[in-house]
Amino acid sequence: MKELLLARAFRLIEPGPVVLLTTSHKGKANVMTMSWLMDVEFTPQIACIVSESDYSFKALRSTKECVIGIPAVDIIGKVIDLGNCSGKDVNKFTKFKLTPLPAEKVKAPLIAECLANIECRVIDTILVKKYNLFILEGIKAWIDNNRKEKRTFHAVGDGTFVVDGRRINLKKKMVKWKEIINI
Amino acid sequence: MKELLLARAFRLIEPGPVVLLTTSHKGKANVMTMSWLMDVEFTPQIACIVSESDYSFKALRSTKECVIGIPAVDIIGKVIDLGNCSGKDVNKFTKFKLTPLPAEKVKAPLIAECLANIECRVIDTILVKKYNLFILEGIKAWIDNNRKEKRTFHAVGDGTFVVDGRRINLKKKMVKWKEIINI
Repeated sequence: MKELLLARAFRLIEPGPVVLLTTSHKGKANVMTMSWLMDVEFTPQIACIVSESDYSFKALRSTKECVIGIPAVDIIGKVIDLGNCSGKDVNKFTKFKLTPLPAEKVKAPLIAECLANIECRVIDTILVKKYNLFILEGIKAWIDNNRKEKRTFHAVGDGTFVVDGRRINLKKKMVKWKEIINI
Repeated sequence: MKELLLARAFRLIEPGPVVLLTTSHKGKANVMTMSWLMDVEFTPQIACIVSESDYSFKALRSTKECVIGIPAVDIIGKVIDLGNCSGKDVNKFTKFKLTPLPAEKVKAPLIAECLANIECRVIDTILVKKYNLFILEGIKAWIDNNRKEKRTFHAVGDGTFVVDGRRINLKKKMVKWKEIINI
């Protein structure tokens, strides 16, 4: 994993991929699958929904730290399977042969098999009680540029997933966003 | 546009497509392009970021109503162009030849050229001041099943856009989510 310019990390979230969320609580690392998240600010700040019924909820609320890992489609099977069991019952890193790597600024681990990882701190919990909505701030980002498979995938919510298809370049049209797209 | 079961409307948002947001304020309809949004609840509830600098901000905050339209890739040019000018200066419906249709429960219009539309009410503004974050509730949903082009597209944030590619069916793996995916 090579460092990714933090000002570019919002681009990992904006397309709306399925991601992994790692936490570390009382010496125990865990990972869950997450699809409900969005950019809030370019710095980046990210909003996400982690349900009270998720085993990771307590870890996230207590430690106020996590890592968002962005998987590519070659590990979609693992990503979906680990989203269908609980860290309460199994060590998911062992069970799904995922490699936790030490992060730099948080205790939650990076995932070696992911395309990219964003170390995050929870900066706002005001909507946690009502909507399970956490506001995170990305504080360090990593990318694996040597990875061959770079296509991410998107949950449809009916048990199907859509893989990234072709890319359309409309840079010339983005007049209003020139500064942002040139970062 | 045919009615879409409201309990399925979250599936329009979960994959993370670029969407259109319409408002109607003081008799004037407007539409903006939006990429920062996510599901919050299946009912559906949706969080989105509408910046104070967007002309639609005032309309959304005042009327507390909007429509989220989901465009397919055949109108990507219009969607990006209308996101690069302001309703302050132009009537975007006229300029980009988009057809506003009357919604049922809100004054903001549906867009005939979209694949689907969700009529929404703003239900929480507590994070508007700090993050420009609105919580919406979908109250009526519409879909155009006769439309040929159904692939949506996703903003990367660098002036490029990724179109929906192939679909992977993992319904059998979604043990924990059986009730949701069968809606």
